[in-house]
Amino acid sequence: MAFLLGTWRGQGKGEYPTVESFLYEEEVRFWDIGKPFLAYTQRTWDPANGTPRHGEMGYWRPAGRDRVEMVLAHPTGIVEIQEGRVDGTRIDVVSTLVGRTGTAKDVRRLERTIEVTGDVLSYTLRMAAVGVELTQHLAAELHREG
Amino acid sequence: MAFLLGTWRGQGKGEYPTVESFLYEEEVRFWDIGKPFLAYTQRTWDPANGTPRHGEMGYWRPAGRDRVEMVLAHPTGIVEIQEGRVDGTRIDVVSTLVGRTGTAKDVRRLERTIEVTGDVLSYTLRMAAVGVELTQHLAAELHREG
Repeated sequence: MAFLLGTWRGQGKGEYPTVESFLYEEEVRFWDIGKPFLAYTQRTWDPANGTPRHGEMGYWRPAGRDRVEMVLAHPTGIVEIQEGRVDGTRIDVVSTLVGRTGTAKDVRRLERTIEVTGDVLSYTLRMAAVGVELTQHLAAELHREG
Repeated sequence: MAFLLGTWRGQGKGEYPTVESFLYEEEVRFWDIGKPFLAYTQRTWDPANGTPRHGEMGYWRPAGRDRVEMVLAHPTGIVEIQEGRVDGTRIDVVSTLVGRTGTAKDVRRLERTIEVTGDVLSYTLRMAAVGVELTQHLAAELHREG
């Protein structure tokens, strides 16, 4: 999974039936911490004024031939386990667990697709939440900066 | 929860019925990201040779008067939701959810106590895992470095 390593920046678009569509700027970092997994942080902000929007942090774990597991925490009070498949430089994972604190929003399922082509990383995220079935939520294209 | 802010370093001791007791060095960071919660990262290493041991990342969320929620991801394939109480500069939280990827160790319950006195942070962690009931696992004392 070395194809993920580095710091990535770019823009994305968010949409969901319950909110007005929005653009965001994003920074993603994958780094090696000397163990057989990658550490991962992500943050987004409003392009208009730099106001922080979302963030998430966690780890990616290779789990045998062509398989990957991801564990993530969201500041919105969500934890997420994703499991799925690595096919070349494409990753498809789906949530096997979404956990919520007492005050968190009702997120039920998340599916992520990540694809790297050279120094371009694109991803999409689909979400079932607040009574809405699995629906396109986020798409972004990021460029490796280091 | 501003009493947590900063970078903390120090030493801890680990013990568990299934492993030999061990010492570790640790760095913890709490930082403000312009939202009503704190970001948190932790990493430990072997004092003898600097080999990385554990790490974890997540967020702390104030949740109403004297209450706090924590969401955490561990590279071992564990996600954790902790909820509990803030009493002055002491925090007591217990896991309301421990989630595991397909290849993770069988961790069932975690309880954490954190106490800050000026620039000293001490914590203890109790764990139920791999068939062992809730048992003292970690204790450390860290000093604020910035």
